[in-house]
Amino acid sequence: MNVKPNYAEELLEILHSSLSNEELLDRLSDYHENDIADALSQLTEDERKKLYPVLGAERLAEIFTYIDDPDEYLKELDLDKVAKVISYMDSDDAVDVLDEFDDSTQEKLVEMLDEEASHDIRMIQSYEDDEIGSKMTTNFIVIYHDLTIRQAMRELVRQAGDNDNISTVYVVDRKDVFYGAIDLKDLIIARERDSLDDIISTSYPYVTDHEKISDCIEDIKDYAEDSIPVLTDKKMLIGVITSQDIVEVVDDEMGDDYAKLAGLTAEEDLNETTKESMKKRLPWLVVLLFLGIGVSSVVGVFETVVATLPIVMAFQSLILDMAGNVGTQSLAVTIRVLMDENLTGAQKLHLAIKEMRVGFMNGLVLGTVSFLLVGCYIWLLKPNPANHAFLISGCVGFSLMAAMVISSLVGTLIPMFFHKIKVDPAVASGPLITTVNDLVAVITYYGLAWILLIQTFHLA
Amino acid sequence: MNVKPNYAEELLEILHSSLSNEELLDRLSDYHENDIADALSQLTEDERKKLYPVLGAERLAEIFTYIDDPDEYLKELDLDKVAKVISYMDSDDAVDVLDEFDDSTQEKLVEMLDEEASHDIRMIQSYEDDEIGSKMTTNFIVIYHDLTIRQAMRELVRQAGDNDNISTVYVVDRKDVFYGAIDLKDLIIARERDSLDDIISTSYPYVTDHEKISDCIEDIKDYAEDSIPVLTDKKMLIGVITSQDIVEVVDDEMGDDYAKLAGLTAEEDLNETTKESMKKRLPWLVVLLFLGIGVSSVVGVFETVVATLPIVMAFQSLILDMAGNVGTQSLAVTIRVLMDENLTGAQKLHLAIKEMRVGFMNGLVLGTVSFLLVGCYIWLLKPNPANHAFLISGCVGFSLMAAMVISSLVGTLIPMFFHKIKVDPAVASGPLITTVNDLVAVITYYGLAWILLIQTFHLA
Repeated sequence: MNVKPNYAEELLEILHSSLSNEELLDRLSDYHENDIADALSQLTEDERKKLYPVLGAERLAEIFTYIDDPDEYLKELDLDKVAKVISYMDSDDAVDVLDEFDDSTQEKLVEMLDEEASHDIRMIQSYEDDEIGSKMTTNFIVIYHDLTIRQAMRELVRQAGDNDNISTVYVVDRKDVFYGAIDLKDLIIARERDSLDDIISTSYPYVTDHEKISDCIEDIKDYAEDSIPVLTDKKMLIGVITSQDIVEVVDDEMGDDYAKLAGLTAEEDLNETTKESMKKRLPWLVVLLFLGIGVSSVVGVFETVVATLPIVMAFQSLILDMAGNVGTQSLAVTIRVLMDENLTGAQKLHLAIKEMRVGFMNGLVLGTVSFLLVGCYIWLLKPNPANHAFLISGCVGFSLMAAMVISSLVGTLIPMFFHKIKVDPAVASGPLITTVNDLVAVITYYGLAWILLIQTFHLA
Repeated sequence: MNVKPNYAEELLEILHSSLSNEELLDRLSDYHENDIADALSQLTEDERKKLYPVLGAERLAEIFTYIDDPDEYLKELDLDKVAKVISYMDSDDAVDVLDEFDDSTQEKLVEMLDEEASHDIRMIQSYEDDEIGSKMTTNFIVIYHDLTIRQAMRELVRQAGDNDNISTVYVVDRKDVFYGAIDLKDLIIARERDSLDDIISTSYPYVTDHEKISDCIEDIKDYAEDSIPVLTDKKMLIGVITSQDIVEVVDDEMGDDYAKLAGLTAEEDLNETTKESMKKRLPWLVVLLFLGIGVSSVVGVFETVVATLPIVMAFQSLILDMAGNVGTQSLAVTIRVLMDENLTGAQKLHLAIKEMRVGFMNGLVLGTVSFLLVGCYIWLLKPNPANHAFLISGCVGFSLMAAMVISSLVGTLIPMFFHKIKVDPAVASGPLITTVNDLVAVITYYGLAWILLIQTFHLA
């Protein structure tokens, strides 16, 4: 069995050898930029500084797009060299790299770029972070709709040198209005006498530049294309979303949902400072603290129940935890469904009823189990008469079931409500659901204990 | 401002009009298969049955890959037509479609396919669901390494008819061993007198067929390529992972993490039956119920504390909820970091210390706030002397802080432990963390109340 080669290590060996610049460049050309990027980080600054001129600005541009913090390395170059490297980058990558510099350096760099590059970068920077325009690149192939197959092929070859994303060839009319798209494969296998129009899809899917990413990403995914065009309101073609962008956006959006479900305001990574982490976590915790104090003051109302029959307090944590777990399950399901599909009112009702039914069935199973288990526990381990024990555990079991049904419903309706009023349900729902569920569970449990155990059966 | 056209509606209009078959086919060729798929679902069975022969097997193959439950529609075709449609699909899509049929129909269909298609499908089906081989497609362009540029171009044109994924051209030697890859762009702009070897990347990244998806998906994402080759142990090229597959895999993996964080065994969608949903949720809930009863029996030990000083029980929910929230935050951060990177021991220690520090700082803030707020509440609203009130709230505040520090640590160490012993931390950590945190919080709080409030200051 072959062991998978470690390309970064191979590269380090090559880079540390005493090859001539020409040989070195030839050897490096066989490797992927991502692996060269990995190797770069393991060189000393001096070694890197010797390597940069050998690689040249165009190759460096590609390599730096694979580095997380490219500014660290770009700082080892003169500013005019940095500008040159950036000018070779895909425009969306260039924007990402520029973001790593402070504002004044950014401004200086953009001014040193050629007109086209600086125009593209300023355009992409003009979009809000949650608009799809901020994710597009301006590197794509575009031809006029009235060319012949041969002319189109020639245009493709001419433009392919500067533009990476060639698998879809975009078509505009002579007024530069979007006309359609050609699958490169169809252009390659077309015969010279065929008409270009026959291979153009004129009703091609697109997004408009100011659309919210979260609104259009599901559509974009559904088309499963290598790239999707971005148009202005006036149907001018200004960029494309590549499949790499789609991977990135899907990753970001899901990571965001994940973080929010866990009560973080944004995703965190390994290198964050304590202060940054606190900033992401504290807001939610403060909200929860206040809501929690609210819940506690309601629990305080039932002091006398606990004073009369202390054993009941032992099972409060059980009922609250289970209600919380069930609520989180319903919340997670509802949020994923709300994100993925446009639900009709009937479908929403259907979902809510289904969640309640699942909550009820699960509650029935777990309520019965805990009625029996808790009953035996109180009867045998806390010396109590059997009838007392099972009265108490009946209270626990019933409250558990009731709390689970209501938690399922709350976990479904609250995110739907926030979605309806256009507030991100992933952020807003968590604390509210926890609080409502806690309140419902506490009131059901202690209320039932008060009425049934203390008022009716006079247990003490 | 132009309103974005609704292609599915346009298509319905076209399909309901009385165009000749030829005109209809011509109009349909301008639309994306995904939109035709949408329109298809809004036709009656009879309308669809008339449309199928017009579209033909090749186009239908593309359209059906965009339908979630293609078997519903494929059942409207004869079995030999179904086989024909499947034979035109990319092999990974064909496998997905076949999965929708029962075993005997599947077997029948695979036998009706041509040898190449059935070989590819059986190969992909032979991989486990969590192996990268199960996600690959066999539709790619492959050429020999010793061709000229002109011969390579000719091969490309010949193979492009049958294979969708052309943006990377793969290269093998005469023994069919993987040799490297060519960016299609480089082939297109190459001059005829150039040597093919110059544009082949021989140290091209690849995955091996039996690699676990979760182990290699981060690497694949990092290379940001349109496709990544899949090799056997012997370096034979057997398939590629396309960027569409990458989007799908990233989506699945993240969706899975998300579901697990919420205590679901797998992602759910809208159309699931109550039984299926119960099956996904009940296992975790049962585990939590038993652990919860365990916690309750520990809480039961502190019955006398509550009997003596009932007010303390009001704040149990506050401390337990906050500990749970902090634990979930640390868990989420740790799981994402563990998935994304290969951590050294030093980095793990660094992460654990950072999590504790964040927990301590947040705990200090929230502990102080709750000391003040809870103190005022007990002093003013539950008539208690101020010194008693702030002794009790001091207990609450200190326990809250201690619980938050320990929860952060537990939320970090438990997933690391499961990761170390190769158990999925996303599944196993949740219940254990909740339980440990509940226990720690309960023991700290009631223990402190017992020693400080009752034994030392004799509050009652």
